[in-house]
Amino acid sequence: MKKVVKFGGTSLADGRQYQKVVDIIKSNSERKVVVVSAPGKRFDDDIKVTDLLIQYAQESQQDGSQTAQTEIITRYQAISDYFQLDAAIFAPILDTILALPDQEFIDPDYRLAYFKAHGEKLNAMLMAMVLQKLGLPARFIDPSQAGLIVSDNANSATVLPETYTNLAQLKYDEEEVLVFPGFFGITPNEQIATFARGGSDITGSIVARGLGISVYENFTDVSSIYVANPKIIDHPAPIAEMTYREMRELSYAGFSVFNDEAIIPAIEGEVTINVKNTNDPQAPGTMIVPEDGFQPQYPITGVTSSNHFSALYLHRYLLNQEVGLTLKLLQIFYKYGISYEHMPSGIDDLTIIFDNRQFNQTTIEQLCQEVQEVLHPDTLKWIDDYSIIMVVGEGMLRQSKAASEAISVLSQKGIPVNMINQGASQISTMIGTSRADADQAVIDIYHHFFKNRKEA
Amino acid sequence: MKKVVKFGGTSLADGRQYQKVVDIIKSNSERKVVVVSAPGKRFDDDIKVTDLLIQYAQESQQDGSQTAQTEIITRYQAISDYFQLDAAIFAPILDTILALPDQEFIDPDYRLAYFKAHGEKLNAMLMAMVLQKLGLPARFIDPSQAGLIVSDNANSATVLPETYTNLAQLKYDEEEVLVFPGFFGITPNEQIATFARGGSDITGSIVARGLGISVYENFTDVSSIYVANPKIIDHPAPIAEMTYREMRELSYAGFSVFNDEAIIPAIEGEVTINVKNTNDPQAPGTMIVPEDGFQPQYPITGVTSSNHFSALYLHRYLLNQEVGLTLKLLQIFYKYGISYEHMPSGIDDLTIIFDNRQFNQTTIEQLCQEVQEVLHPDTLKWIDDYSIIMVVGEGMLRQSKAASEAISVLSQKGIPVNMINQGASQISTMIGTSRADADQAVIDIYHHFFKNRKEA
Repeated sequence: MKKVVKFGGTSLADGRQYQKVVDIIKSNSERKVVVVSAPGKRFDDDIKVTDLLIQYAQESQQDGSQTAQTEIITRYQAISDYFQLDAAIFAPILDTILALPDQEFIDPDYRLAYFKAHGEKLNAMLMAMVLQKLGLPARFIDPSQAGLIVSDNANSATVLPETYTNLAQLKYDEEEVLVFPGFFGITPNEQIATFARGGSDITGSIVARGLGISVYENFTDVSSIYVANPKIIDHPAPIAEMTYREMRELSYAGFSVFNDEAIIPAIEGEVTINVKNTNDPQAPGTMIVPEDGFQPQYPITGVTSSNHFSALYLHRYLLNQEVGLTLKLLQIFYKYGISYEHMPSGIDDLTIIFDNRQFNQTTIEQLCQEVQEVLHPDTLKWIDDYSIIMVVGEGMLRQSKAASEAISVLSQKGIPVNMINQGASQISTMIGTSRADADQAVIDIYHHFFKNRKEA
Repeated sequence: MKKVVKFGGTSLADGRQYQKVVDIIKSNSERKVVVVSAPGKRFDDDIKVTDLLIQYAQESQQDGSQTAQTEIITRYQAISDYFQLDAAIFAPILDTILALPDQEFIDPDYRLAYFKAHGEKLNAMLMAMVLQKLGLPARFIDPSQAGLIVSDNANSATVLPETYTNLAQLKYDEEEVLVFPGFFGITPNEQIATFARGGSDITGSIVARGLGISVYENFTDVSSIYVANPKIIDHPAPIAEMTYREMRELSYAGFSVFNDEAIIPAIEGEVTINVKNTNDPQAPGTMIVPEDGFQPQYPITGVTSSNHFSALYLHRYLLNQEVGLTLKLLQIFYKYGISYEHMPSGIDDLTIIFDNRQFNQTTIEQLCQEVQEVLHPDTLKWIDDYSIIMVVGEGMLRQSKAASEAISVLSQKGIPVNMINQGASQISTMIGTSRADADQAVIDIYHHFFKNRKEA
């Protein structure tokens, strides 16, 4: 049974890391499809190759400075040297880097996408060369040849359905290792376009689904997804197994181990995702699996908090009797290009919760003014101090006590709760607190549910 | 200090009830402004005069049957006889009833409003006659003379602001009792138009605000507003004092002692409402007061449930990333003239809760089909079995434990909770249950908070 294995940027940052990846691939003959990111940071202050490529794209249009170009060549060359590749073998990579500025583009967005995508493309070429050098039959797969077709949004493309038909028809030898670059695909107009962020995760899911492979190992730099953020909880319990939708709910409020959008092709292809650690490949990691047949082991699976929220509070008597009031409100948001997250409503009150990363002070002021003019609320209040705690678990479906326990814990600890939102998803409860209380809320809920559970 | 006193239909159903009302007015010289409903039911199977008037409106256009006309005359005549009014004094009432069909209307809605409004109008005329007969200086006030101006919605009018200027200019003798008919006003086109329902409560608030009177005694057939529905809880605790907004929140989910819309003029005029019992006028009743300076005595003030809800559940991966999705949804609702109540949202899920009294089966099917076609959710589910429990109290503002306790109680009793919505109003928590569980939920929450409280 074949597996797709994807490696992130830190797993491919230099020759030593590359060696670990090669060992992982060689250690299990099922690992026949490899997806790579661009070389990432080797140390804290290092610059990712993707960022160097963005710099290269700018420099090549301006003063002719070659700082970025030189550094990019150095990064790939160092890996090549580590594995003692011949200069002749490495030459195509060198030539491609030097030739990047020669391409013509109508649209600067596609130019940027083209530069960025080469971080992955060159790394996939290099990985295939290294594996060949070490005696494994390996082949670089270009997304344009494989037919990985994406929408024509240069830097935030989404996969198009014909990709799966194309991948199903890909010809390959059963024994060879296929190396795909992550992060990008080809538009119907044959331009390179990248996914939004964490795009190599997405490529891995697409390739697994397209090739009909049911296990997708996603190698990162952590040994597991944890029940809570290790920056808040000291040595939190690891999650052995979770469902796709638990991952979705937790990633909403801060879990960032696996890309959100990458879940969708995996769900569609019923691909099990196994998050593993390049630096500790023997650890079982975390399995992300379909809901069907999943047996939750604990009342909750994870708890997380996120601070990037703000809220608009409106009060007007008989608010709920006005048909079309929310419609007017949403039309205002739409005009400003603002999307809302949640909208808890009372009888005469309405709170609208936003992701505040989409605002600046001017927009907030304009928005509040327009809402005041159109809806004439008795009270209008902008609340900047808003955190959301997510308590998530398939176990909540069966044991409805978990939600009420989580809420009780906060009340017992004296943490004021601004908002409780439960009801759309039956596997999560959303609790609003002030930012100052958010970490403590996570700690208290974690200890309530996991105090007797073995720590990592 | 003057008081406005309003009497409901059962308090004025016959001569004996009328006598109680007269005694109440006479027993306190501050009761100088009286607002009356139409005569209500004298016994369970009786017909209210308002319903007889609707029947009269129909009959007078059809076969010339005089069943309703005769019965209406009989009802007022019986009260007149009880107080031994001279036939000459009663004559204007008789003449008005007989002349009702003679009026011409362009619009049948205004014709209906005109008939209906006369239940109150004739009763106010009669009350003034009775009070005069008993030696009190009393005067019938016609809304058209007093300038009680309403919007031109024949059967669901709302008060217009010039009413308050007009009422402030009303000339009267300090010693005389003014008798206003409830339920209706006059449009700018000089047509009679009625309020939607419970309209005499609204008139009482408007008159109190307009005349600058700060106490409004609302006489009904119960001695108090209770913490919970007496049909569910045996002898529930009475509420001595509650705020306007507590009343609003509780009336949303079933408390129907005092009309919802009637609160607004009271709030605007800072009028204290005292709900009292015509059959037990010495009982203190329930005071409905402004929030400022209110000291809650208990963690919650009331708990109620309401069964007339349905919900539409939608699931689609990455639902929350689509800007304008809710807007599309609301535009569909708007097209169908449907208003929603609450919209709890998850990450990939959205539940929209409706008042299901606005639906028939065909609308539901059409609505679901259109939502399916426009939004393409992976899952779309119509949930007919939806009750909302409201736990309300100013005390929840200070003691945030009450919400969590209410939720815990249900979880301990094994009652599944579909939805928790808290966050817009800080003085209430909204909990969704199945219809079968709703009464038990109220019982359990009631007993948790009021088990040690003295019963009524």
